[in-house]
Amino acid sequence: MTRFALTIEYDGRPFMGWQRQDHGPSVQQAIEDAIATITGEQVLVYAAGRTDSGVHALAMRAHVDVAKPIAPFRLMSAINARIRPAPVAILDCREVADDWHARFSCTGRAYEYRIVNRRAPLTWEAGLAWQLALPLDVEAMREGAGHLIGRHDFTTFRSAHCQAESPIRTLDRLDVERDGDRIVIRTAARSFLHHQVRSMVGCLSLVGQGKWAPGDMKTALEARERAALGFNAPSDGLYFVGASYPED
Amino acid sequence: MTRFALTIEYDGRPFMGWQRQDHGPSVQQAIEDAIATITGEQVLVYAAGRTDSGVHALAMRAHVDVAKPIAPFRLMSAINARIRPAPVAILDCREVADDWHARFSCTGRAYEYRIVNRRAPLTWEAGLAWQLALPLDVEAMREGAGHLIGRHDFTTFRSAHCQAESPIRTLDRLDVERDGDRIVIRTAARSFLHHQVRSMVGCLSLVGQGKWAPGDMKTALEARERAALGFNAPSDGLYFVGASYPED
Repeated sequence: MTRFALTIEYDGRPFMGWQRQDHGPSVQQAIEDAIATITGEQVLVYAAGRTDSGVHALAMRAHVDVAKPIAPFRLMSAINARIRPAPVAILDCREVADDWHARFSCTGRAYEYRIVNRRAPLTWEAGLAWQLALPLDVEAMREGAGHLIGRHDFTTFRSAHCQAESPIRTLDRLDVERDGDRIVIRTAARSFLHHQVRSMVGCLSLVGQGKWAPGDMKTALEARERAALGFNAPSDGLYFVGASYPED
Repeated sequence: MTRFALTIEYDGRPFMGWQRQDHGPSVQQAIEDAIATITGEQVLVYAAGRTDSGVHALAMRAHVDVAKPIAPFRLMSAINARIRPAPVAILDCREVADDWHARFSCTGRAYEYRIVNRRAPLTWEAGLAWQLALPLDVEAMREGAGHLIGRHDFTTFRSAHCQAESPIRTLDRLDVERDGDRIVIRTAARSFLHHQVRSMVGCLSLVGQGKWAPGDMKTALEARERAALGFNAPSDGLYFVGASYPED
């Protein structure tokens, strides 16, 4: 048995999310099925994060155990060849120790959220970004974001379906950058609650539109209840961009 | 009759190109049909450049004459609402003088060409960039590009179907930039021959891969025959990014 660590890019649009589902296609299933056609083994692929329906990844990390002897480069090329036309690509594949776990060894996760701030609808970016017509005040968004940095109870920004034992998380980064009509929000933490990034972005959009004052982010956080949430941003603009591990 | 200047973004993937065709969908037809449902007029839309099948635009410029009195902002919003789900968006719409012509008044055109330089296939960028597995030497590409700058007979880089009277063009810019595995080639000229940008990019890709020396660009140019062309890059990576006018 050899354990391989994978770095994976995917377009989330056609998928019900990362995790294998009975009722629709998933990224996990696409990769597992591709490996099955290569090695004849029904494997399980474990990811650093289980992204929701419509969420994308530029560099998801995952691992899989394969019994058949195969070189990492061969495995990567074979998956990329077999997985078509599903929009999933293995960017990197390497052997790792048997106790390396994509999810449990992971010490940091990073996401970015892409907003196109204009009146006109999206064309080639449809499903790949969130189009917001009202002009966003990026300075106000930055000020609002500052209230969430650090160790807090993020109950307000947590899905009702979140399975985490604790709502306490330490947010290391929540940056807002504008380039023309493109706004990117970058965030990093050891781990996130379910819907946390989309919930934070949704509220920041209210701050950007002037519907919330920057300080309302603090009020929402301190309320520690889902009812205080302003808005959940759509999955379209969300990208899993990286996971970090102690050996990195 | 009021003449409106339009700035248009489109995803070229579902279209046979800009120009109205009998055998498939075109950007021109999508816009003309949308305007017809708004004003009841069968209008003609003239563009700064007639992009080929699969070529995209971030800021195509065009004009149209409309008899029905309508404010520019209203016209823009109505087109954007009616044109869905075609991936076309009007980014700007303004009244212009009756003698302003998107094509004939245009004094400069700019394109960019997007390459993803990696082994793995594309996911969300499929059809939006050209994936090239062999590592490209950007310095060599820059040197090769330098040979094309200026006023030349571009017969080598011209489609057999090109309808221009003269093969002489003045190339103002042909820059190659790398950011990680993303390479962008930016080019500008008063006007281009049919397939000129894709032909230049195709040959530059050979230089980048070491199959051509940078000086082979000069040899190809001076051959002044299509047979000397190395390669025509696919339409996927090509974007019309801007047109300039004397009043800008």
